[in-house]
Amino acid sequence: MARTKGDHDARRREASEAVWRVLDAHGFGGLTLRAVAAELGATTGLLTHYFPTKRDLVAHALDLLEQRTADRPREVAADGSDALRGTLLAVLPLTTEAATSNRIWVSSWDPALADPGLSRDHARRYGRSRDKLRDLVAAAQERGEIRAGDPADIAAGAESFVLGLVVQALFDPAAFPARRQVALLDDYLRTLSP
Amino acid sequence: MARTKGDHDARRREASEAVWRVLDAHGFGGLTLRAVAAELGATTGLLTHYFPTKRDLVAHALDLLEQRTADRPREVAADGSDALRGTLLAVLPLTTEAATSNRIWVSSWDPALADPGLSRDHARRYGRSRDKLRDLVAAAQERGEIRAGDPADIAAGAESFVLGLVVQALFDPAAFPARRQVALLDDYLRTLSP
Repeated sequence: MARTKGDHDARRREASEAVWRVLDAHGFGGLTLRAVAAELGATTGLLTHYFPTKRDLVAHALDLLEQRTADRPREVAADGSDALRGTLLAVLPLTTEAATSNRIWVSSWDPALADPGLSRDHARRYGRSRDKLRDLVAAAQERGEIRAGDPADIAAGAESFVLGLVVQALFDPAAFPARRQVALLDDYLRTLSP
Repeated sequence: MARTKGDHDARRREASEAVWRVLDAHGFGGLTLRAVAAELGATTGLLTHYFPTKRDLVAHALDLLEQRTADRPREVAADGSDALRGTLLAVLPLTTEAATSNRIWVSSWDPALADPGLSRDHARRYGRSRDKLRDLVAAAQERGEIRAGDPADIAAGAESFVLGLVVQALFDPAAFPARRQVALLDDYLRTLSP
């Protein structure tokens, strides 16, 4: 029987789901064709149809991570400094689901740093994230809600603050419950007020 | 011929050097007994004498990383807010050597998050780092150089800021030359003044 395009897409989706479950359980360090095949109940031979090499698998996993993060439901951000706060809060591991995604992001930094192409892709992803923050900062400055200063620098500082908070909260969730993460971010945001 | 303790220590040091070179080149994702054996020009059989399992190898690599970081030459910190600034600057990838060490630290987060025991060890390491910062913050507050506030929270915020700056600078060294990293940290530290 001829395979339809729909079959192919469904199988590819199943493979993606299996990649996600492996990432969730073992991080990028545990992401191998063999682990995904086992998760899928398939042979590695079938899997190489979708991911000819380990690098293809990692690149797919990074795309999947970006897509899942973009699709994560979040409150519609208001304007001004509230939009900035909402965007930064959405980065933090305040829920179990967000912590899973954060944990996979952090784990992606190892393979990404080890490969110049993947590293450039990640640099572009974080660059886009900073650009978005920069625009929010500039808009909040126009409304007089954020102090003067280069919006790109303020954005880079804010991105630094949340990324580092993510790392600390992942390793020590007891020391960084959601309440404390929000309080620390709010302390930080107060330093940006005029 | 009987092997001496000195022989054993020398071989162990050689194995450690090989582990470091593998980490430098490939990160923790590329750290395998086979890769270290190849780097050492030895058999994996010899290597299992030092590292019976992959986990032993990763745990040794994390200890090595901590030791190398502690041994990194740095300026003797002054007291007060200068000591805080010096300690935070020492975390940043301001030199090629520091960037190598940072890159390996960041890459260690993947295997550490995937293993509860290694994760606890990392949580303790970052906890000690925050305790040190907290004491520096408290001392600077007593001198009137840092604003009022819970020194543990100020320390957690400062640690967040530098860790996140490390990640961004590693992915995008062109956007974060040493000069800009220092300027961003100084902007941040100004927000802590009374």
